[in-house]
Amino acid sequence: MSLITIERKILEKNDAIASENRKNFSSKNIFAINLVSSPGSGKTSLVERTLNHLKNKTKIVVIEGDVQTDLDAKRIEALNTPVVQIVTNGACHLEANLVRDAFGQLKENNIEILIIENVGNLVCPAGYDLGEDVKVIIASTTEGDDKPLKYPAMFRNSSVLIINKIDLIPFVNCSIDAIKKNALSINPTLKIFEVSCQTGAGIHEWCDWLENQIKNE
Amino acid sequence: MSLITIERKILEKNDAIASENRKNFSSKNIFAINLVSSPGSGKTSLVERTLNHLKNKTKIVVIEGDVQTDLDAKRIEALNTPVVQIVTNGACHLEANLVRDAFGQLKENNIEILIIENVGNLVCPAGYDLGEDVKVIIASTTEGDDKPLKYPAMFRNSSVLIINKIDLIPFVNCSIDAIKKNALSINPTLKIFEVSCQTGAGIHEWCDWLENQIKNE
Repeated sequence: MSLITIERKILEKNDAIASENRKNFSSKNIFAINLVSSPGSGKTSLVERTLNHLKNKTKIVVIEGDVQTDLDAKRIEALNTPVVQIVTNGACHLEANLVRDAFGQLKENNIEILIIENVGNLVCPAGYDLGEDVKVIIASTTEGDDKPLKYPAMFRNSSVLIINKIDLIPFVNCSIDAIKKNALSINPTLKIFEVSCQTGAGIHEWCDWLENQIKNE
Repeated sequence: MSLITIERKILEKNDAIASENRKNFSSKNIFAINLVSSPGSGKTSLVERTLNHLKNKTKIVVIEGDVQTDLDAKRIEALNTPVVQIVTNGACHLEANLVRDAFGQLKENNIEILIIENVGNLVCPAGYDLGEDVKVIIASTTEGDDKPLKYPAMFRNSSVLIINKIDLIPFVNCSIDAIKKNALSINPTLKIFEVSCQTGAGIHEWCDWLENQIKNE
């Protein structure tokens, strides 16, 4: 039982730091997103699309979480957006203290949106609050429509579901209606967007919603 | 530091049971595969294709690992193949004791191939030996070609890479050559197959290789 106790202590410590992060972001009127998904679902592509759509209107900064490499941070940097890369060195999820330290490295003022791109993992990040306002989960049509049922914790803990790669629907064995139905059976309050980061379809609706969140802060 | 000690103890205990599993499988001339990938890369589809291709020639049994649901086991059962479902109840990887117990539930004789389908997760299962002969990793073209660099431990610990969804190459921003180059830069000894579980392309070559492994046992 000692492991369970230690795990609980780690989670309690994480939650305490996450609460501090949340207070800090709130005091600065920052809307914070914890972006989660499987590897390759399109988290970085969604961030790129979002930056391109909103960069002249909204001050956005990004924290990238990866097991290895700073490939994603380089993609964000190429869009002239302030970004800090967290390399977890094998760890399977971000924790609140890493986000606190990474945020501390950002020297920007008047930030409106903070996007935290978590490690690509549909299981472990579900249990770790980072201090975000919303957890946004991406599910791609190429992954099939059963993922909400098979990885329910992450869908339960998210506020927004982005269904990505809708341009590939003609070629894959997946129904968008089934993804929605399965996701809503786990979490009836999910706000759902359908997008293609390849074609840009649906990005406008997602960004409009995002802008409204700033106004509501 | 106590957590690290406990983690090491868990891994040591897991490795000891994995060794027992390996001896057990070997004594029965069973070739055991630990099948790993992101969620939705096509693990269950590959198992289905493999069963359809080899079921009249080879005695195959399957252990399914999932965080929740027995959806995958039902797909395998529909092919009249002996299968045991492990539901991890939120845990992000299989461990050797779960595989030992699941294998104990299979009442088959003369098994030639055991396929263990791990939880969909490109990070955590890398550290847990199950007693398999080979770890087989699936990477789909829809996930992009940078995954070997971003999740190196799993590619380093695998013997075989199956590149799936090659039928979608015309529609996605991914190069098969780049997946191979990136994967071989992490693990130069990887045996690589290119398949489509949708069209059946490449399944023959993979199954031929698999049959040869039985003969070599």
